[in-house]
Amino acid sequence: MVGYQFMGKAHSHAYRDLPFYFDGKIKPVLKAVAGRKEAAVKDAADRMGWESYETDWRKLVERKDIDVVDIVTPNHTHAEIAIAAAKAGKHVITEKPLALSLEQAKEMHEAVKENNVKHLICHNYRFAPAVQFAKKLLEDGRLGRIYHFRANYLQDFIMDPDFPLIWRLKKEVSGSGALGDIGAHSIDLARFLIGEFEEIVGTTETFIKERPAGEMSGGLSASSDASGYGEVTVDDAVAFISRFENGTLGTFEATRFAGGNRNKNKFEINGEKGSLRWDMEDMNKLDVYFSDDEEGLQGFRTVNCTEEVHPYAGAYWPAGHIIGYEHTFINLLHAFFEESAPYPDFEDGVKNQAVLEAVEKSSEQRQWVSVSK
Amino acid sequence: MVGYQFMGKAHSHAYRDLPFYFDGKIKPVLKAVAGRKEAAVKDAADRMGWESYETDWRKLVERKDIDVVDIVTPNHTHAEIAIAAAKAGKHVITEKPLALSLEQAKEMHEAVKENNVKHLICHNYRFAPAVQFAKKLLEDGRLGRIYHFRANYLQDFIMDPDFPLIWRLKKEVSGSGALGDIGAHSIDLARFLIGEFEEIVGTTETFIKERPAGEMSGGLSASSDASGYGEVTVDDAVAFISRFENGTLGTFEATRFAGGNRNKNKFEINGEKGSLRWDMEDMNKLDVYFSDDEEGLQGFRTVNCTEEVHPYAGAYWPAGHIIGYEHTFINLLHAFFEESAPYPDFEDGVKNQAVLEAVEKSSEQRQWVSVSK
Amino acid sequence: MVGYQFMGKAHSHAYRDLPFYFDGKIKPVLKAVAGRKEAAVKDAADRMGWESYETDWRKLVERKDIDVVDIVTPNHTHAEIAIAAAKAGKHVITEKPLALSLEQAKEMHEAVKENNVKHLICHNYRFAPAVQFAKKLLEDGRLGRIYHFRANYLQDFIMDPDFPLIWRLKKEVSGSGALGDIGAHSIDLARFLIGEFEEIVGTTETFIKERPAGEMSGGLSASSDASGYGEVTVDDAVAFISRFENGTLGTFEATRFAGGNRNKNKFEINGEKGSLRWDMEDMNKLDVYFSDDEEGLQGFRTVNCTEEVHPYAGAYWPAGHIIGYEHTFINLLHAFFEESAPYPDFEDGVKNQAVLEAVEKSSEQRQWVSVSK
Amino acid sequence: MVGYQFMGKAHSHAYRDLPFYFDGKIKPVLKAVAGRKEAAVKDAADRMGWESYETDWRKLVERKDIDVVDIVTPNHTHAEIAIAAAKAGKHVITEKPLALSLEQAKEMHEAVKENNVKHLICHNYRFAPAVQFAKKLLEDGRLGRIYHFRANYLQDFIMDPDFPLIWRLKKEVSGSGALGDIGAHSIDLARFLIGEFEEIVGTTETFIKERPAGEMSGGLSASSDASGYGEVTVDDAVAFISRFENGTLGTFEATRFAGGNRNKNKFEINGEKGSLRWDMEDMNKLDVYFSDDEEGLQGFRTVNCTEEVHPYAGAYWPAGHIIGYEHTFINLLHAFFEESAPYPDFEDGVKNQAVLEAVEKSSEQRQWVSVSK
Repeated sequence: MVGYQFMGKAHSHAYRDLPFYFDGKIKPVLKAVAGRKEAAVKDAADRMGWESYETDWRKLVERKDIDVVDIVTPNHTHAEIAIAAAKAGKHVITEKPLALSLEQAKEMHEAVKENNVKHLICHNYRFAPAVQFAKKLLEDGRLGRIYHFRANYLQDFIMDPDFPLIWRLKKEVSGSGALGDIGAHSIDLARFLIGEFEEIVGTTETFIKERPAGEMSGGLSASSDASGYGEVTVDDAVAFISRFENGTLGTFEATRFAGGNRNKNKFEINGEKGSLRWDMEDMNKLDVYFSDDEEGLQGFRTVNCTEEVHPYAGAYWPAGHIIGYEHTFINLLHAFFEESAPYPDFEDGVKNQAVLEAVEKSSEQRQWVSVSK
Repeated sequence: MVGYQFMGKAHSHAYRDLPFYFDGKIKPVLKAVAGRKEAAVKDAADRMGWESYETDWRKLVERKDIDVVDIVTPNHTHAEIAIAAAKAGKHVITEKPLALSLEQAKEMHEAVKENNVKHLICHNYRFAPAVQFAKKLLEDGRLGRIYHFRANYLQDFIMDPDFPLIWRLKKEVSGSGALGDIGAHSIDLARFLIGEFEEIVGTTETFIKERPAGEMSGGLSASSDASGYGEVTVDDAVAFISRFENGTLGTFEATRFAGGNRNKNKFEINGEKGSLRWDMEDMNKLDVYFSDDEEGLQGFRTVNCTEEVHPYAGAYWPAGHIIGYEHTFINLLHAFFEESAPYPDFEDGVKNQAVLEAVEKSSEQRQWVSVSK
Repeated sequence: MVGYQFMGKAHSHAYRDLPFYFDGKIKPVLKAVAGRKEAAVKDAADRMGWESYETDWRKLVERKDIDVVDIVTPNHTHAEIAIAAAKAGKHVITEKPLALSLEQAKEMHEAVKENNVKHLICHNYRFAPAVQFAKKLLEDGRLGRIYHFRANYLQDFIMDPDFPLIWRLKKEVSGSGALGDIGAHSIDLARFLIGEFEEIVGTTETFIKERPAGEMSGGLSASSDASGYGEVTVDDAVAFISRFENGTLGTFEATRFAGGNRNKNKFEINGEKGSLRWDMEDMNKLDVYFSDDEEGLQGFRTVNCTEEVHPYAGAYWPAGHIIGYEHTFINLLHAFFEESAPYPDFEDGVKNQAVLEAVEKSSEQRQWVSVSK
Repeated sequence: MVGYQFMGKAHSHAYRDLPFYFDGKIKPVLKAVAGRKEAAVKDAADRMGWESYETDWRKLVERKDIDVVDIVTPNHTHAEIAIAAAKAGKHVITEKPLALSLEQAKEMHEAVKENNVKHLICHNYRFAPAVQFAKKLLEDGRLGRIYHFRANYLQDFIMDPDFPLIWRLKKEVSGSGALGDIGAHSIDLARFLIGEFEEIVGTTETFIKERPAGEMSGGLSASSDASGYGEVTVDDAVAFISRFENGTLGTFEATRFAGGNRNKNKFEINGEKGSLRWDMEDMNKLDVYFSDDEEGLQGFRTVNCTEEVHPYAGAYWPAGHIIGYEHTFINLLHAFFEESAPYPDFEDGVKNQAVLEAVEKSSEQRQWVSVSK
């Protein structure tokens, strides 16, 4: 694994916990973690249970005892590492967004295809049991033709103007702001549940344009003016409207400026025969409405998706005993290693990136743009 | 009052109930209701407590014993009646949207100004105590700079493809569909709470393009093909993004195709210092978040706006004893007759219409458009 | 009507509003209101629309132009007025609880039976559409055998120790505290929905034993010590467990010391085939669970009981446009005047009083007691 | 560890996961699991990561390489194993309830004290961050004097009359039904948050008195009649009222017959200065009400207890990324091994058992009983 921050922790835990919950042919061994600062990476390896560490990710790629390279570094490094890993014949796992640009994403996809390695992009929210169950209801035609997909991903962690200029706020490192960081998750959920995007119109916004600059992460620094402030070069918020290939009307909003919403990743789907609602902060529940329920008894049902019949839920606890954020990663990795379910791969990463690019283009051109196929 | 359907009932009730709850200088007397079909209008007069009836609205306008003309007819008739009433020196009350077009709306506004009569457009949702209280919090600066306004108005009453081609589905009678019928309410709430719109990008959608045709209302008929189907000429749904003059980013969606949502008129506001959430289906409650609440104790408070301190709530019942839809009209009329609070007038109607027009223009031109001032 | 405080307002409004919403054979005329203080009763008559007033309730009972006497005075006066009214051949409406004791309640019931007049006790919460709909589901056997009835009635209006010693806090005037004031409503809902009580065990509690004394209401004063404090002689809270004749296990709690709960009157019912949940603060909604819903799709449905199919809801507004507290009285009076539905009468009042008495007896004897039949 | 069913899984996982999330002096090693059926226990050891297995728990107790014995077997075996383990100088962890009777519980407590070993009873729900945070608010006096504690523990897993006669339904194996299985958790939460019980009145109920009999667990069989049905000898539901030493009034209900409630373990606390509400099915949230919040802005705040400031939450994920059921065990074990917080021990087990005993005694004697000290 390259990198060891928040996502490194989530992935490491999932590798460790996976064999406890699922019987699989493959049992991950935590061989080595890489990072530039020796003391920090050594500590991370100890804490998270990696057998060894490297201070140069290239070493990981070269090591014979490593089959999978997992990339949880800032976004601007994904491409180089992933391509090198693929060329070395390693299977590749990457955090989202895949890359800084659609072009770069396509190169990565080419590399994994050419080298015939498996590839995964960590859109973990697909793997909440409630979301997998939503997918099943949709596939079974239980909602009929879909009219609306409505997604909000609301956070508030950078609302303080004194929150520093971290790497996620610099375009050259992160590609975009709320758009690629959290909007990409909504886009993935939309693609998973509804289908492909046709065209988009939207806008981005940066509410706080300068922030205290300093070290950003792993040796990166943001340039600053004399007063120690540097420019925020990504969006704080994004809103866009889309049409899907199947005619569904989509509305999306992703923001880091919605006070009181720590991680409110939610969607609603309205179809001919019913509706669904889901919210990551209450991730075990799926609200389900059927328009053919008996008259007078129509209403959203709150289904606690913790029963044997709900995808992946049976691996955990009895009904009503909820699971949390980390289990989305465990389920995702189970799908990847055991191919127990379709998992998001670099092709998904490319298609997601095409939507991100279309949003940015629409924001600049101030009009509808087609999503590149 | 001209017209006597759903809105006629809501208005009639409010006139009757107003003096019970509020001490005011003016006590409305229900003089006469007008409608074209004698039997029906006579029955409506009896049922709703009007002293007399007329079968031609022009008679109402001429009657000396009438001070206020209230127009609750289909939208295409608002202008003619309102202008005639104003010219006759009557105060005028109209249902929303004000008119079929911005131009028509402006003519109406001119007429009431020239004839120096009072004028009201019935954006009743402003007058839920929770919304009035939200306004107070905003005016007091409790949320600081506003970043986001997010409105959904979701209904589902025409989802059945066999639902007939009523007047609300014909452009020449209604002006627009979900946009002017319910989206106009969201626009009014946004203008009331946030401020004026600057520019807009959006789209409209008609999911069911033909419906069983027949008599629409009050003598109107929709043309149909041989099979008895006629064309739906308005939007079933609309989505748009806006920027406000003060920099707030707005997102709006109004639809009649969101199954399970009977009348879900809701908004969220995110500001520098806090957030608000409101939903008409639970109209007594306002969710309030303050970012300067004590660490660890931050969270949305669910405030039951039924206390003396909440605007208009003191006129009704003790705290916790909720009120409903009809009370928004009572409060609105109290504001109008007693000028107890700013009420939405034809100027608001014009500005609202300018937003409606911008949305339709943007939908056609597929790009951002400025809102006409 | 005798009395004109909170309940007087609720009743007056309901008489006025009833004919607007319901076509009935009987249209109430607000003839006269009685109270001891002339200025106040005159003002109340004006404000609430009564044609005349009396300063002695006996005058009301004597008046020929009055058919119905409605008693909304403090509890200790119900019996004398009701019996006098019945003897004078007037139909009688009384607020709950019927009387100060079971014996007194029985005398009242005898009086109305002997004089062959109609009688109503205002357990209005039965008449929320969601509660009427719950009743229908139960009658239709949709829940099967009932295992549990669980009621909480939580208020907080007297939590401040400086809240004065009003008449509701003196046993000689009110009979009991939270028990008879709000617990009686839960008992009525239980009897309406589940059936008759068999036996009870419970306890009462007075958290604040002395309060500032002064005039209580209508000329009554509470005695006080030198410091101006008087003794609270009723319960602040009550909790009891019951068995019903049909084997259902009931749990009840009523308190005025549950901070944050302004008027949280709620119940849950668990039966063999499903469950129901209702809360007066959200009175339009009924949560419904069916155990034979499809596997994986089981969950409480939130039904907004505002549709034509929901009892009484059709008289008001389109689906999703909620009603409030006052409408429970309108529905109740419609049932009484038009006998459109079984309404709670003095027999219900007697049976309710028997439960109240059993709770007090159990609290004293510290053991289970049978409910008197 | 002795036993390897549901609780065995929960404990095993927690031992494995503990060192990932918490830095501690002690790192548990999963030495051996014991069970009577070799094939099954071998499989459990493999699946859950135990180094070895034994088919007789006495072997575990004798093994030198084992420091802690964890007992997750049916309740009737707790005492013998725990006492033997204590005598062998092992630290002892036991599932709740501690024993079948208060006397037995006291013997167990004596044994661990005499042998000077550490002891833990797994009341895991104390260790949800939201509950720990509630404890902190109470200790800090934020709610003032406490008036009410109100607990419901609602499940529905045995509602089907054809659900078999498992060991949890036989008194000689489980001690009691819903009372000891889930009511014991509510009792522990009450003792943790409010204080000691003074006296109790309550009742138990068995709705389904006979069930299909067969093998129950680990070689146990339930006797049956000719038709294959055996008697249920424990309660299906229990309700009781309590007074606490500090004057708080408590109400409790625990049932396995509340359809639609898979694991609804909830409580409400009402104090002089505020209220708290918690529900295990939404375990990350704590509803908090303060009566000294600004007028008009009073309401329950929904606090998502996933922030650094919330006890134990900092060990997991960023704010808003929820945790689940299993984390309550990890936190509990961290408290036990590192003594990072007071944990429930055998003394708590004894006091809990005294309450269970008082409830059963009250149910038999049909009156209030004191809780044994």
